[in-house]
Amino acid sequence: MPIFYQPVVQEGINHLDQEEARHAIKVLRLQSGDPLRITDGKGSIYECTITDIAKSTCSFSVHKTISVPRRNFSIHIAIAPTKNIDRIEWFVEKATEMGIEKISFVRSKNSERTVVNPERLAKKAISAMKQSGQAWLPLLQPIQPFDQLLDFGGLKYIAHVDPENPQHLKEAPPNGHYLVLVGPEGDFSQQEVDLAVEKGFQKVSLGATTLRTETAGLAACFILNLINS
Amino acid sequence: MPIFYQPVVQEGINHLDQEEARHAIKVLRLQSGDPLRITDGKGSIYECTITDIAKSTCSFSVHKTISVPRRNFSIHIAIAPTKNIDRIEWFVEKATEMGIEKISFVRSKNSERTVVNPERLAKKAISAMKQSGQAWLPLLQPIQPFDQLLDFGGLKYIAHVDPENPQHLKEAPPNGHYLVLVGPEGDFSQQEVDLAVEKGFQKVSLGATTLRTETAGLAACFILNLINS
Repeated sequence: MPIFYQPVVQEGINHLDQEEARHAIKVLRLQSGDPLRITDGKGSIYECTITDIAKSTCSFSVHKTISVPRRNFSIHIAIAPTKNIDRIEWFVEKATEMGIEKISFVRSKNSERTVVNPERLAKKAISAMKQSGQAWLPLLQPIQPFDQLLDFGGLKYIAHVDPENPQHLKEAPPNGHYLVLVGPEGDFSQQEVDLAVEKGFQKVSLGATTLRTETAGLAACFILNLINS
Repeated sequence: MPIFYQPVVQEGINHLDQEEARHAIKVLRLQSGDPLRITDGKGSIYECTITDIAKSTCSFSVHKTISVPRRNFSIHIAIAPTKNIDRIEWFVEKATEMGIEKISFVRSKNSERTVVNPERLAKKAISAMKQSGQAWLPLLQPIQPFDQLLDFGGLKYIAHVDPENPQHLKEAPPNGHYLVLVGPEGDFSQQEVDLAVEKGFQKVSLGATTLRTETAGLAACFILNLINS
């Protein structure tokens, strides 16, 4: 059954948003009477039926609402955007597929990119949420300076291998609210690492090999999902 | 220190292969006397010094050879190529970065693509191996029919959720030689799943969400690396 994204669904008759309607009508060629599912990205999946199709309008009624609770843990990855934006886009896509609550973009001393296109990234997240049939859309935060991310109340990690005291992220306790900082191509500066440690962040390794920024972000997401599965 | 790929390195003076030489000279603008590292993709990393640069030839001598043993486990993922080849290319890149011994491409009943470009995929693997500083290049096998993959002597898994008896791949024992089959967009056919089970494959889940083919392949690779780390 095809799934669409619509952030607001009311009682009674609804109309798919413009772009989703176009997809339903022109690409999938859905007809009146066809079933569809809606995710609102805020915890609800609606099972619906198309009531009418007229030009570019696709109307539907809801016959069942499924409430999907938030997970009993949450993952927040704050990542330095890569020079090649494709790599961050796929990080957003894959992390959303795996399950993530929040993605932030961090401006670090060695950042090769200091701007991102929030709309384009939001589209990637929406598409991945639909693709994987999920009810929650991750929160995407605008780019912000490194030090603004340091005050967080949960379990705090910075991806940075400490040869003297190596800790693997997989040793994190389950059921936590996690924040993991992932640095740019040139890594975090020593000053940034020291500041994070001062603020209670733990330095962690994500595996045996050297990972690209976007792979490191995804690895962190994978590991935290796995210790909670 | 820049790292280059050269499958054959001899005693005495060597010359970088054409494309690598071009990169060293034109892009990195290396000079005589500069240090470089070579990976041969077969377990050796060579620490070298450039002895001469002339037009498009970059000569070097080896002053240290580091032998990197194979891991005490091995990962083989056999995956159905996706319709959009970009997705398989990034699977090859990311799996190589994480560490994988062998990638096969499988022609399944529901495959949307039945050809891959082995040279292009090999380039992705080489680039990722260099990027992550590794000594072993994964073996990439040509596309083959589903049933040719079923005779394997190690631990055999097929990514396919069995609601009655769900098993997560993370329960796999460590230090194994693993093969994981990952299906196409339309999943393996029931007949293929039954045949695999008959041949000793275990049906496994890779997580709580529905994953795209390439994400499933990478998830399998992540999970097996993690239980062995």
